[in-house]
Amino acid sequence: MAELTRHPFRILLEDTSGTRARRATLSTEHGEIQTPHFFPVGTLGVVKTISPRELVEAGVQAILANSYHLYLRPGLDILRQAGGLHRFMRWDRPILTDSGGFQVFSLADIRKVHSDGVRFQSHLDGSYHEFTPESVVNIQRHIGSDIMMVLDLCPPYPCSHGQADEWNRLTVQWAKQALVAEAEQPLLYEHRQNLWGIVQGSTYPDLRKESAAALLELDFPGYAIGGMAVGEPKSIFHDLVPFAAELLPNHKPRYLMGVGFPEDLLRCVSWGIDFFDCVLPTRNGRNGCAFTWNGRVIVKTARHKQEFLPLDEHCSCYTCTTFDRAYLRHLFVCDEMLSLRLISLHNVHFYQDLMRQIREHLEAGDFSPWMNRVLPQIEQRDS
Amino acid sequence: MAELTRHPFRILLEDTSGTRARRATLSTEHGEIQTPHFFPVGTLGVVKTISPRELVEAGVQAILANSYHLYLRPGLDILRQAGGLHRFMRWDRPILTDSGGFQVFSLADIRKVHSDGVRFQSHLDGSYHEFTPESVVNIQRHIGSDIMMVLDLCPPYPCSHGQADEWNRLTVQWAKQALVAEAEQPLLYEHRQNLWGIVQGSTYPDLRKESAAALLELDFPGYAIGGMAVGEPKSIFHDLVPFAAELLPNHKPRYLMGVGFPEDLLRCVSWGIDFFDCVLPTRNGRNGCAFTWNGRVIVKTARHKQEFLPLDEHCSCYTCTTFDRAYLRHLFVCDEMLSLRLISLHNVHFYQDLMRQIREHLEAGDFSPWMNRVLPQIEQRDS
Repeated sequence: MAELTRHPFRILLEDTSGTRARRATLSTEHGEIQTPHFFPVGTLGVVKTISPRELVEAGVQAILANSYHLYLRPGLDILRQAGGLHRFMRWDRPILTDSGGFQVFSLADIRKVHSDGVRFQSHLDGSYHEFTPESVVNIQRHIGSDIMMVLDLCPPYPCSHGQADEWNRLTVQWAKQALVAEAEQPLLYEHRQNLWGIVQGSTYPDLRKESAAALLELDFPGYAIGGMAVGEPKSIFHDLVPFAAELLPNHKPRYLMGVGFPEDLLRCVSWGIDFFDCVLPTRNGRNGCAFTWNGRVIVKTARHKQEFLPLDEHCSCYTCTTFDRAYLRHLFVCDEMLSLRLISLHNVHFYQDLMRQIREHLEAGDFSPWMNRVLPQIEQRDS
Repeated sequence: MAELTRHPFRILLEDTSGTRARRATLSTEHGEIQTPHFFPVGTLGVVKTISPRELVEAGVQAILANSYHLYLRPGLDILRQAGGLHRFMRWDRPILTDSGGFQVFSLADIRKVHSDGVRFQSHLDGSYHEFTPESVVNIQRHIGSDIMMVLDLCPPYPCSHGQADEWNRLTVQWAKQALVAEAEQPLLYEHRQNLWGIVQGSTYPDLRKESAAALLELDFPGYAIGGMAVGEPKSIFHDLVPFAAELLPNHKPRYLMGVGFPEDLLRCVSWGIDFFDCVLPTRNGRNGCAFTWNGRVIVKTARHKQEFLPLDEHCSCYTCTTFDRAYLRHLFVCDEMLSLRLISLHNVHFYQDLMRQIREHLEAGDFSPWMNRVLPQIEQRDS
C-alpha cells in the first residue's frame, strides 16, 4: 500500500569517478524530476520576477514554495478555490513545499516554540498563528504540493548542545505526528503528495546521528538535511554535509535544504545529495549579481559599462543570447526592473544548466575530474 | 532629393463613416508602421518591465525613447559604441525620440529657458546640461532613432497668451535651426532619420494657427501636436485637438504627443490623428491598473480576491490567456514584481489591440458606429 502512494525514486547510476554522487529520477504526477536537481524558490507562488513559461524555458523541472508564506497570503481558502497552487500559479510541474521550519530560524524574533508547535506572529499584521505538525500537513494539503515537508525546528548557529538536543527530540516527535496527520487528512486534489522527514542536530555529529536514526525508523519516502547554511563556518559545512548524507539510506532521495552557491552544489552532489533549493539565484539576481561559468559578475561595476559581451558566453538563456553587459548595467543603474528580471532569469537558467551538466558528466563517467576543473572557475568573484 | 530621404507616408483610405480618421503606412528601414499607431514609451531604452520579445509578441510596431534621459544615461559615447539604440536595446523595429521639449514642462524646476536653448540641471547629480536645437539633433543622431523630434518649448497649463506667444516664436526659430543642423550633421548609422516639427501654442487657437502656419512653411515630413494633456480641462482638449489637427496637411503624418487614455485615442483618431504615445499603459500597469474592453480594472481591490477570471476575456495576451485576477491580485498585494510585469504587458498589448481594431474598423468602413459602441464600455472604471 505504502509503495503505491510513494513517488518512485530510481537510481540510474552511481558515480564511477570516485565520488558518492548519483543520478536518479523521482516520478510525480506532475512529471519526472531528473536528479541531481535544484529547486528555484517560489516563496509566495512565484519565482521572483519570473513567469512560469520562462521557468520552463530555463529548464526548471520543479520549484519550491513556502507553506508559512502561502498560509498567510493568499491563504488556504483561495488556494482551495483555485484548485491548489499548481493551478493558481499556472505551474504544472512538481512543487515541493517547505514546512515553516525554516521560519523558526529566519523569523526567530516573532515566533515562540513550545512542545506542541510554533506560534508565529505574522510579519505582516502582527496577528498570531499556531503551526503544529498537523496544521502544517493541512496547509500543504491545501497547497497540493507534490512533496510536503514535516514541521521541524531549524536551530540557529551557534546553538548549545542542550538546546539542539531538545529541539531534535521535538522534531522527531513532530515527524511522528505529521505521519499520523498525513494518514488522516485526505488528499484535496487528484495527485499523490509525499511527506519527507528532516534531519536536524545543529553542528553536533552525535545529534545528527540520533536524528537520522530516529527518522529512518519512521520510513519516510525522502529525507532532507536541515539546519545547514545558517551561518556556520564553511569548514563545518564541508565536514557535516558528507557526514549527514552518509547517515541517510542509499535508496531514498536526499535533499539538502537552503543550499547554496554553485560551488556548494558541485561539492554536495559529490557527497551524495540529490536535491537542493536556495534563494541565491533570484535574490542575487535582484541585487545585480550574476552567476556564470567564470564566476560571479557584479553587473553595476564600471568595467561592464562598455562591455558589449553577454554575461556568460556559454549560456543559452534569453538574457545571454540577446543582451550585452553594457545594456544590463545601464538598466541596473537606472533602477529598471527589466534588469532584475533578466539577471534573475539568467541565474535560474545557469543553476539548471549547472545541474544538467552535472547529470551529463555523471552519465559520461567523468564527473569528478570535470568538477575539479570547473570549481576554481565557478568560484571566481568579479573584480 | 528630399523625397529620397523621407519615409514614405501612404494614406490607404480615409474614413467613410463620418469622421476625419485615416488609415496609412509609414515606411522606415526598420519596418513599416501601420497607422493609426500608438508608441509605448521606452524612456531609457526599455519599455518599463517588458522585454523586446514581449513587445513584439504584444504587436508593438514602434516605440518611443527619450533624448533627454538617454543623453544622461547611458550617454552618447555608449550609444555610439553600441551602434545606436536599436542595437543597444535589441529592438529592430522603428524608434521615435522625443526631443527633451517635454522635459521643459515636466522638469520645470530644474531648467532655464533662454533664446538659444534650455539649460537643464540633471535630475540625477545636479550637473548642468545645455540643450540646443543643434545639440538635440546630435543626440538623436547618436541614438539613431528613425523619427527625430525638434527641440520645442512645451508650455504648462495655464500659460499666459504673452508667454505662449514668446515660446511659440522660439519653437519656430529652433525648428529652423534644427533643420539646418539636420542637413549639416551626418548620419551615424545606415538608416534614414526623419525630423518632425512640433506645433505648440498652448490653449490659444490663434497661436496654434500661427505655429502651424510657420512650421508648415518649413516642410517637415511629419508634424506633432505638442503641449496637450498637460493638465487642461477635458473640454479644452476636445475642442483643441480637432482644431489643431485641421491645421496640419492631409498628406503628412499627424502625431499627438503624450496622449492618452483608450477613450482619448478613439476620439483623436476620429479627428485625424495618426500617431500617439503615452506612459499610461506602463505607468498604470505598475500601479496595478489594467485597461480592458470593459474599462479599468484596479487589481488590488478586494472583489478580485476570488475572481478566477482573466483581466479581460477578450484579450489574447500572455497575462490574460494564462492567469486569473485572483493570482494577479495576490502577486500585487505581495509586492511581487511579476504582477507589475504582467499587468504592464497586458496594458501594452491592449493598447496595440485597440489600435489594430481601429485600423480594422476603418478598413471595414464601420469605424464611427463601432467607436460609439465601445466608448462607453472602455471608459468604465472599476467599482
